[in-house]
Amino acid sequence: MSIRPYRLLYPLRTYLVTSGVYPGEYNVMTADWITVVSARPFYVAVSISPERYTYKLVKKYGELVVAVPGWELLEEVWEAGSLSGPAKLKKLKLTFERGVAVKSPVVKEAIANLECEVVDSKLYGDHELYISELVSPYYNPMAFNAEKIKPETKVILHVAGGRFMTNDSVIREL
Amino acid sequence: MSIRPYRLLYPLRTYLVTSGVYPGEYNVMTADWITVVSARPFYVAVSISPERYTYKLVKKYGELVVAVPGWELLEEVWEAGSLSGPAKLKKLKLTFERGVAVKSPVVKEAIANLECEVVDSKLYGDHELYISELVSPYYNPMAFNAEKIKPETKVILHVAGGRFMTNDSVIREL
Repeated sequence: MSIRPYRLLYPLRTYLVTSGVYPGEYNVMTADWITVVSARPFYVAVSISPERYTYKLVKKYGELVVAVPGWELLEEVWEAGSLSGPAKLKKLKLTFERGVAVKSPVVKEAIANLECEVVDSKLYGDHELYISELVSPYYNPMAFNAEKIKPETKVILHVAGGRFMTNDSVIREL
Repeated sequence: MSIRPYRLLYPLRTYLVTSGVYPGEYNVMTADWITVVSARPFYVAVSISPERYTYKLVKKYGELVVAVPGWELLEEVWEAGSLSGPAKLKKLKLTFERGVAVKSPVVKEAIANLECEVVDSKLYGDHELYISELVSPYYNPMAFNAEKIKPETKVILHVAGGRFMTNDSVIREL
């Protein structure tokens, strides 16, 4: 088949992943390959290529933050995913702050930040899967109701390469 | 916090997962907790609760199919996720067929079917994470272009409980 098989699962949500120690040695990358593994305790799986600088930082410090960008951060998210090195951190119009429970930074403009500690990892093919436990969540109450995301909140769905779409605002109740 | 932390990553795509041997002993469930792990080879991670019948079938046969439903299958997807037992399979208006490379069934109405063999699994908290290798992909060329999903294809995004939304049809190119 001509399509890359993983594109059959797309569009996927795009998240930001920060790592390292703020402000001394940190980074931010974009990641589509993230999912929930367990509800209680809350574990999240993040797939990271060993070619990424983030990979080294997560290995070294055992911490990461999954930051959830709203649609209004699309351009910053795209740059976080396509630029690299210290120049990227300077150019991005994102506000980093030290996490509450981890040394990696949270992203102030994100609608949620999930501070996590790595509990397990294993290399599968061309990526390593990091299983991480939530240690401190933060979210913007403007974007979420008590039990769910608000219908007017727009999130980033990655189609392929530089192509993105968002959700509509209609919730269908069954 | 009053919100369940995993809802901060929602809305997530909802997929169907079939398991077992068709037509003798098979099942279908819904799953939001699925992601790509590796591109080459293509590995997908599927998180399954040990309380599910699907869990037993995947353990027993080491195969599963990730079927990708379009928005038009929403009601069937909801029933696949809320009913159980043989009554569910009878009630669902889905057409099951034996896979090409696996004994589990594919879903004829899905926009894609990813037939997979389990290569590893591990229990994390209240779910077991199954790492599965793609052995045969099938997709509907009406829903995908060569490299990506078509903008007019509507997919299922799960908000919480019986609440769902879909994507809009505008692709933003950066």
